[in-house]
Amino acid sequence: MNVRNGAKVVHGATIDGGFWKVYRETVAREGITYQWKALNDEIPDASPSGCMRNFRIASGREQGGHTGFVFQDSDAYKWLEAVAYCIRWKGDEAMEALADEAIETIAAAQQPDGYLDTYYIINGLEKRWTNLKNNHELYCAGHMIEAAVAYYQATGKRRLLDVALRFVDHINSVIGPEEGKLHGYPGHPVIEMALMRLYEVTGDEKHLRLAKYFVDQRGQEPLYFREEDKKRAEKNSWGTMEYYQAHKPVREQTEAVGHAVRAMYLYSGMADVARVTDDETLKAACVTLWNNTTRRRMYVTGAVGSTEYGEAFSFDDDLPNDTVYGETCAAIGLVFFARRMLQLRPSAEYADVMERALYNGVISGMDLDGKRFFYVNPLEVWPEACEKDPHKKHVVPQRQKWFGCACCPPNLFRLISSLEDYVAVEDDGTLYVNLYAKGTLNACSGALKFAVETDYPWDGAIRLNCLSDQPAEGVLALRVSGWCKKYTLCVNGEPVKAPMTDGYVRLKRAWKADDQVDLVFDMPVRYVRANPRVREDVGKVALMRGPLCYCLEQADNGDSLHLLKAVTNGETRIERADMLGGITLITAQGEKEVVSPEWNDTLYAEADAPATVPKTLTFIPYYAWANRGLGEMSVWVRS
Amino acid sequence: MNVRNGAKVVHGATIDGGFWKVYRETVAREGITYQWKALNDEIPDASPSGCMRNFRIASGREQGGHTGFVFQDSDAYKWLEAVAYCIRWKGDEAMEALADEAIETIAAAQQPDGYLDTYYIINGLEKRWTNLKNNHELYCAGHMIEAAVAYYQATGKRRLLDVALRFVDHINSVIGPEEGKLHGYPGHPVIEMALMRLYEVTGDEKHLRLAKYFVDQRGQEPLYFREEDKKRAEKNSWGTMEYYQAHKPVREQTEAVGHAVRAMYLYSGMADVARVTDDETLKAACVTLWNNTTRRRMYVTGAVGSTEYGEAFSFDDDLPNDTVYGETCAAIGLVFFARRMLQLRPSAEYADVMERALYNGVISGMDLDGKRFFYVNPLEVWPEACEKDPHKKHVVPQRQKWFGCACCPPNLFRLISSLEDYVAVEDDGTLYVNLYAKGTLNACSGALKFAVETDYPWDGAIRLNCLSDQPAEGVLALRVSGWCKKYTLCVNGEPVKAPMTDGYVRLKRAWKADDQVDLVFDMPVRYVRANPRVREDVGKVALMRGPLCYCLEQADNGDSLHLLKAVTNGETRIERADMLGGITLITAQGEKEVVSPEWNDTLYAEADAPATVPKTLTFIPYYAWANRGLGEMSVWVRS
Repeated sequence: MNVRNGAKVVHGATIDGGFWKVYRETVAREGITYQWKALNDEIPDASPSGCMRNFRIASGREQGGHTGFVFQDSDAYKWLEAVAYCIRWKGDEAMEALADEAIETIAAAQQPDGYLDTYYIINGLEKRWTNLKNNHELYCAGHMIEAAVAYYQATGKRRLLDVALRFVDHINSVIGPEEGKLHGYPGHPVIEMALMRLYEVTGDEKHLRLAKYFVDQRGQEPLYFREEDKKRAEKNSWGTMEYYQAHKPVREQTEAVGHAVRAMYLYSGMADVARVTDDETLKAACVTLWNNTTRRRMYVTGAVGSTEYGEAFSFDDDLPNDTVYGETCAAIGLVFFARRMLQLRPSAEYADVMERALYNGVISGMDLDGKRFFYVNPLEVWPEACEKDPHKKHVVPQRQKWFGCACCPPNLFRLISSLEDYVAVEDDGTLYVNLYAKGTLNACSGALKFAVETDYPWDGAIRLNCLSDQPAEGVLALRVSGWCKKYTLCVNGEPVKAPMTDGYVRLKRAWKADDQVDLVFDMPVRYVRANPRVREDVGKVALMRGPLCYCLEQADNGDSLHLLKAVTNGETRIERADMLGGITLITAQGEKEVVSPEWNDTLYAEADAPATVPKTLTFIPYYAWANRGLGEMSVWVRS
Repeated sequence: MNVRNGAKVVHGATIDGGFWKVYRETVAREGITYQWKALNDEIPDASPSGCMRNFRIASGREQGGHTGFVFQDSDAYKWLEAVAYCIRWKGDEAMEALADEAIETIAAAQQPDGYLDTYYIINGLEKRWTNLKNNHELYCAGHMIEAAVAYYQATGKRRLLDVALRFVDHINSVIGPEEGKLHGYPGHPVIEMALMRLYEVTGDEKHLRLAKYFVDQRGQEPLYFREEDKKRAEKNSWGTMEYYQAHKPVREQTEAVGHAVRAMYLYSGMADVARVTDDETLKAACVTLWNNTTRRRMYVTGAVGSTEYGEAFSFDDDLPNDTVYGETCAAIGLVFFARRMLQLRPSAEYADVMERALYNGVISGMDLDGKRFFYVNPLEVWPEACEKDPHKKHVVPQRQKWFGCACCPPNLFRLISSLEDYVAVEDDGTLYVNLYAKGTLNACSGALKFAVETDYPWDGAIRLNCLSDQPAEGVLALRVSGWCKKYTLCVNGEPVKAPMTDGYVRLKRAWKADDQVDLVFDMPVRYVRANPRVREDVGKVALMRGPLCYCLEQADNGDSLHLLKAVTNGETRIERADMLGGITLITAQGEKEVVSPEWNDTLYAEADAPATVPKTLTFIPYYAWANRGLGEMSVWVRS
């Protein structure tokens, strides 16, 4: 195998202030604590998770049956992964002790042959590996690996890593290209990405080989999932092959289809494998799927998955705002995919989408207290319709405490608490900065170090102070967002002209301590339109500023948001406001259609265009919606 | 019971030319012949109906099981009813012979106790009357009565009428207020209207009493359908009480809910009973339900039923154009309801809705050849979405040959072939003309007779020539449509001023032969808007002329209809065109948004309002859409 690493993630970055710090603290303080209670069934009135109990039962320490979904184990792993990132961030002995205890509970359930999945251990091992399509053994294994690697990297402790390595050895003994093994692949991807991390941390190529096998084998005839269905004599097996992205070999796939989270996870794994194996056809497939995803099937908030049928992608340009699925996990998956595309080839195009998803469709999934969550992230809500229209019953207009299928909250936790891994990548001596957050950047080589000061995304000014102990040659490539039309760049107070390629402005110099870079993005309010192919958004605009997508809420604008119109050439005003955890509020010139009393009893009439009255429209960041009770919301407004 | 008849339907009217004659001939020539073959399983490749065979099996003339739905018998009755109207219209010995034969086949299946429902006769009589909620025995009985009365009125033959009377006697022995009888009512109304016709033709008050019982008993606690479910020990009984309009007593119902056809049929029966019993609370309930239906829950085409979930009404102002149900039968039901409201109190408001439904949402259900049919009548179609979006899978963008559940085509046949019964009503010496069609009007009293000449709806000129043999005192009340802003009225060539009340202009005189009335409606093209509460139509207009709603089709306007805009103060041009069976085509000034090449690879961008180019928009009558292959269609257009 021709192995090349591509751009490396800058794991040495930190985030220690500003916008994201609040989120990280909320996750560490509220989320992780709450979830630990949930995993241990210590939350009154919540449906029982049984997660940790399942491990105890599987290890014989407790009696009982399996509780929850077939993928219940993954909740513990996601929790551990988030815990690992919190510890990496700023240590926490109590949390680490808790995690060590959880790891022991997990390890105790591992079977002599390395197998570890409580669902099958409890319900009968003779049935394991018979339903890769729907029963999530490889998915749970993947999350175990992610947790194991993260925890090892954060604490140096190998306990869970060793458990994971034994489990992977077992998987390798059961699945693979050799005769007598199952020629299968996961019904829900994640292990592909996870194995690539395991390869990264161990250097053992067998992990790369298994990841590549899962990617390559998918969609090969005879279709494994069909064969598996036959073996189980399952007549009405649930799910189309498209749902699993298993309808054709991945290199022949050109459209983002099926379950959106599965798709994003698969494409992420493909990009990892393509990068490390320097596989041009696989890279090309990633680019094709990326383009289809982000140019035809993505919401302005970075949400993906247009339909609740299969929580799935639908078809090009089909982006309904009120019946969207837009699962939080799918937007998270898009962030995973984007970073891996950046590792294939640093280009601001990928970082733009990553940023779009992060600041909008990802964090909209959580309330400002970190206690309530959206699974579905709509762009338009009329609460009465959510209640009464079965087409919209999946669109819950207020965040919920926790879910029976609790995939989104812990996924949010692990992403938010590892966000420094998304800040920058390094390739060939160039440090590509993709996200701007207060903190530090340490290039992988260690030579280049910067402190980053910024109030982004509220303000477009970013200051980088070089922290390098000794002068270091290198290129600092600063992403200029696609939304930015104008910026200034100074080094040590002097304006500089620097070349711009692939959306990065590049500063090449021998950096020395206290070199100061000031990048200031002009950050005006923007009225954004959708491609005219998108029927749902025709004649409408969305208001954005910087990476943030804004929305209208009933709390600020009254009801009947559909009667409002933006005056796109009118004045707008920005204002830091204490509300909603501290936001930049935008007020803009608008109009409201006047409803004349003649309409009281009339449904249809010959009538002139309705009169309008001026009305100031108040926009809040989309992510902060639904924090003030039930009401209408809309991202898109008529213009 | 206080019996008063209210306004009488003018059964002596005829339609013998113009717009409706074509439809009637199509129905008589194509529809009825085709349906007879369908009922007799003589259509290759169609799913078997088994309808006539079921009767032969039930009478022991043939062996076998029951084929089709529990309401399969009703297909034969609807066919017979339409045949009766065709015979009344212009006789047809061959058709009458066929009908007599069918009636004998039906009569032979009647049980000694009068019962007649092939589903239970074949499957076991011991189960009859145990599932009024879903098994349609009373529905089939209702359609039998409708057919029996129509056939008796058309031919004077009592054979089927006697069968029906015996069946009704049987029903009276099983269901009713007396102890020991079932205190039930139909799961699908129609028998209420039918019994009122039976009462009208026989004068026997027991039919009125049973109709009134069905109306009054509905929704009384304990809810009969719930009790029935319990008796059958059915745990997951299908359907909510709202679906059946059985959730509360009818006089307490204020909103049109549930299955739209059931609702329209029930309200029609209620209006019949309210009129004849002079029941003020029931009349008030009819008015309330009428207002809710037509002012909050009706499409501009007269379609009703906003959702495919339960083929049902949804909630106020919820009128999506692309996921609408709008069943042809529901629009037909609205016509039934409207005429009965006219009989309660002649008012142009009711006739306006009747006309709206007839010319648009009813006849859109059939293609111009009478061979293909819509069950669902959307106001906006993007064929790709119908194919790929599960929310729109019920919206079939092209008419189909016949349906497994063949309720709509024969319902269309019986309405179209009896349309003269909707032309006028008479009350207290006033002849109220509600529809304008070439033909004759004979007031019930026989004294007033007019020949009607018109090319309506293509032209607004209507000429009535008095045919009375001898001078007759009377009021001719001519409806002025709600859409008409200007009209002229002449009697014998002289302009007259006549009082206008309830939307009728009234001419009182001693009419004599050759008196001539000329009513000319100004019939401009109108841009109509929906009530601003209707979110789906905000910022849009529908083009109408006279009673006809128009639409844009891809065949005339290219694809991407969402990029078109109407210039509502621009020029419009009308033109009689040979296409689509002969229509008035409307071209209007419009614009099309230009899609700039920058959008090729971009999904969202800061952009000015798109440039537009002038574009002539071509509108065809909505009823004629989908006669030229697959393509986009839209009634509402941005303005």
